Amino acid sequence: MDSLPFDDRGLIPAIAQQYDTGQVLMLAWMNRAALVETLATGRVCYWSRSRQALWRKDETSGYRQWLKELRLDCDGDTVLLLVDQQGPSCHTGRSSCFYNRVDGEDLVVDSRSLSRE
Amino acid sequence: MDSLPFDDRGLIPAIAQQYDTGQVLMLAWMNRAALVETLATGRVCYWSRSRQALWRKDETSGYRQWLKELRLDCDGDTVLLLVDQQGPSCHTGRSSCFYNRVDGEDLVVDSRSLSRE
Repeated sequence: MDSLPFDDRGLIPAIAQQYDTGQVLMLAWMNRAALVETLATGRVCYWSRSRQALWRKDETSGYRQWLKELRLDCDGDTVLLLVDQQGPSCHTGRSSCFYNRVDGEDLVVDSRSLSRE
Repeated sequence: MDSLPFDDRGLIPAIAQQYDTGQVLMLAWMNRAALVETLATGRVCYWSRSRQALWRKDETSGYRQWLKELRLDCDGDTVLLLVDQQGPSCHTGRSSCFYNRVDGEDLVVDSRSLSRE
């Protein structure tokens, strides 16, 4: 854990992916404490850059992200969280935060599933 | 494009996901020029933080990432690239960079597919 290349803010980006559908839900940031708590409790905890505090998703949204598996990439500088998301992942009420699709010069709001369900 | 919240280095994180299997391949960084080139050519171009240069994947690996769809998250500060990856995405020859799985206190090298194929 201590060998992970946290950036100069002590953070590492974390991708949350719904474990069974493959849908990419969100990208957020973790510090060492968030990572330790996530692994210890099985409930995903991030670091909120805006609030400068640990951010347990259910505290703000009421919906938990349960950790199924935690992976690191080849450089160890990105986390992939395979999760089971209860309710919407996005604060807009959508299942995924990635609902803005670039279509030529336009940005189209498109909340259809990115998974193969 | 100019309204995107690039960070103080002029960068935005970009997640590459194989469009048909859902496998998360890698996370890299884009600046404005990389984003413009990717959208114009349909071949994914990143910004290499180590080389401080535009990084077209096929120049280093020989394998192209073709862009299928580009999405932005709710805050507009993360890109999701749905791609068709030719050959391995990772410089280690694996399809995905996320082959290190945390298993209790251990890190297990695990290159089985993350998709539901």
